[in-house]
Amino acid sequence: MKVGVADTTFSRFDYAPVVLKVLLQSKPKVVIERYTVPGIKDLPVACKRLFKAKCDIVIACGMVGKMPIDKQCSHEASLGLQAVQLSEGKHIMEVFVHMDEAKNDKELAEICEDRARKHAQNALMLLFDQKQMQRRAGTGRRQGKDDVGTLKI
Amino acid sequence: MKVGVADTTFSRFDYAPVVLKVLLQSKPKVVIERYTVPGIKDLPVACKRLFKAKCDIVIACGMVGKMPIDKQCSHEASLGLQAVQLSEGKHIMEVFVHMDEAKNDKELAEICEDRARKHAQNALMLLFDQKQMQRRAGTGRRQGKDDVGTLKI
Amino acid sequence: MKVGVADTTFSRFDYAPVVLKVLLQSKPKVVIERYTVPGIKDLPVACKRLFKAKCDIVIACGMVGKMPIDKQCSHEASLGLQAVQLSEGKHIMEVFVHMDEAKNDKELAEICEDRARKHAQNALMLLFDQKQMQRRAGTGRRQGKDDVGTLKI
Amino acid sequence: MKVGVADTTFSRFDYAPVVLKVLLQSKPKVVIERYTVPGIKDLPVACKRLFKAKCDIVIACGMVGKMPIDKQCSHEASLGLQAVQLSEGKHIMEVFVHMDEAKNDKELAEICEDRARKHAQNALMLLFDQKQMQRRAGTGRRQGKDDVGTLKI
Amino acid sequence: MKVGVADTTFSRFDYAPVVLKVLLQSKPKVVIERYTVPGIKDLPVACKRLFKAKCDIVIACGMVGKMPIDKQCSHEASLGLQAVQLSEGKHIMEVFVHMDEAKNDKELAEICEDRARKHAQNALMLLFDQKQMQRRAGTGRRQGKDDVGTLKI
Repeated sequence: MKVGVADTTFSRFDYAPVVLKVLLQSKPKVVIERYTVPGIKDLPVACKRLFKAKCDIVIACGMVGKMPIDKQCSHEASLGLQAVQLSEGKHIMEVFVHMDEAKNDKELAEICEDRARKHAQNALMLLFDQKQMQRRAGTGRRQGKDDVGTLKI
Repeated sequence: MKVGVADTTFSRFDYAPVVLKVLLQSKPKVVIERYTVPGIKDLPVACKRLFKAKCDIVIACGMVGKMPIDKQCSHEASLGLQAVQLSEGKHIMEVFVHMDEAKNDKELAEICEDRARKHAQNALMLLFDQKQMQRRAGTGRRQGKDDVGTLKI
Repeated sequence: MKVGVADTTFSRFDYAPVVLKVLLQSKPKVVIERYTVPGIKDLPVACKRLFKAKCDIVIACGMVGKMPIDKQCSHEASLGLQAVQLSEGKHIMEVFVHMDEAKNDKELAEICEDRARKHAQNALMLLFDQKQMQRRAGTGRRQGKDDVGTLKI
Repeated sequence: MKVGVADTTFSRFDYAPVVLKVLLQSKPKVVIERYTVPGIKDLPVACKRLFKAKCDIVIACGMVGKMPIDKQCSHEASLGLQAVQLSEGKHIMEVFVHMDEAKNDKELAEICEDRARKHAQNALMLLFDQKQMQRRAGTGRRQGKDDVGTLKI
Repeated sequence: MKVGVADTTFSRFDYAPVVLKVLLQSKPKVVIERYTVPGIKDLPVACKRLFKAKCDIVIACGMVGKMPIDKQCSHEASLGLQAVQLSEGKHIMEVFVHMDEAKNDKELAEICEDRARKHAQNALMLLFDQKQMQRRAGTGRRQGKDDVGTLKI
């Protein structure tokens, strides 16, 4: 199996080391290919090219600014990622962190690290362990913050 | 006939037992295939794969957070589900519940249960009983809450 | 020529009798096929299937709730209807009525009836009388309310 | 070369005479085909059909109401026009005028006339004179109002 | 390698000289093809045609007005650019400047110049130097303003 990692020069956090650390511990082993682009709106083509290079799944990492135009860009990027996924029939784990999710740089970096790590794990689970994924259905898992659990009724 | 059930680990409600209970009572009997993914934006590819596995209809269950970014995600997921449906020419019953639809966990779970159950019934009706569906046209049916009926004039 | 009629169980108004009344008076005569689905987001696939069943045009009737999420749903449904129309190269008359267009049930039903009737007439005009359609260009025609006429200058 | 002209019965301004006047003065001469539909959301299929009838470019004229739902419709229509253009690899000049662009009927008609005339000229320039188009790059051209010129620095 | 440059007559800034200056200094040399259109919504077809003319990447330059309708247009243009990129599997550098990004004409021109220059450099880096692009991942690069750097933690 081959896993693509796409990221951007716009981001203020370097996701690749976090993602690669998870992927390198994968059993069974996976081949990794990386592709860096300027910003999130360049990620869909990057993913398209990674799939063309025989990736089975891609982890797309980006950061989103605080202005309304940045939100619009993230929406356009996400729609592009949807289109790529559907034309390929393969998953892209979207690791997008919005700069207004955190109160300061430290918290922002922690969100980035947590979301990237957990989605790298999700990518491997989608590739190798659908049974484990199904056991987690409806359990309130979160990436970038703590899990919230199943509804208490 | 084969029915796909797609759900997420993000959701705080476990839809699958509700949906499966309805599907297992179907006459004629249906074959069921399940696929779990991390979040709602991963559901379109899940549905695509379930259709590739010969499903005739898919029930896609997800939960949507309370923040504006969550609304954006649900919009992107829904557009992805539209694209899958049109490329396949087959229906996906979208069982999405927004966390701000309810005042507390108990009410939220009730909405989830009601919507999932009724849309599982709708899926079977679309597969097996278009006549019954047509008799219900214009009768104000709701999933997740009580029916509201035809306009009183 | 064959005309499809798609409608929903969500709607509180039963559009089909209004539409069928117009279609049955068509000269030349048209064949009619109907397809009912749960809600407006299921209409694009319904239309796709009606076109596959050799319809030359489809009238898609739905009702839209009052909440922001309902507006989002109508937007997704409309984009789906656009996609179907373009892949088929054929028209869909969208008869969508928003529940907040009217002050009460009676007015809402009147809007539904007017819009359905006029768009059924538009469907027949698109099929059989482009000359008449061109004569009406720029004349401020409305469906669901009174025509407003050409700009007074 | 063949130029399509698509317009609507919803519009309160009759664009066709304005557009045809420009097109009839074209050197070299162009063949013209017209197609009228009820509203702006019917324009994408109209354009699709005009391209199928061998048009090399289409001028799509519509009017947009003042309500939020009208803005949503114009967005859906514009996305449909984008899709048609990209599937054909050919331009559509979008002559959309919003009813809230003007203070009164007279001003609205003037905007319609100006925008239709200039975009008909743009259509011919795209077909026959890319050199002239390039000379105008960055010069702040406007349709529907006066040009604003290059930035003063 | 061949680089396309698409721009508009709507823009109040002439991007082409800035972009061409960077491209002409490229090592290895690149062939350049230019295409000018009226506005940003015409850019997707322009890019489509530049790719058909064998361009390997396109730089699409536009200016966005201050009104809500202008924002909607930029969103539609960007979605069109996404669609072109994905159908071609090739990058488009989107050099869009919003007129409300700056306080005055001078600042607006500076943003235009900076964004166009840096994205022309990005285009060349994507074509020729993925290693350099990867070294910049997560370093907070900006086009149109100063870089903001990696998160300080």
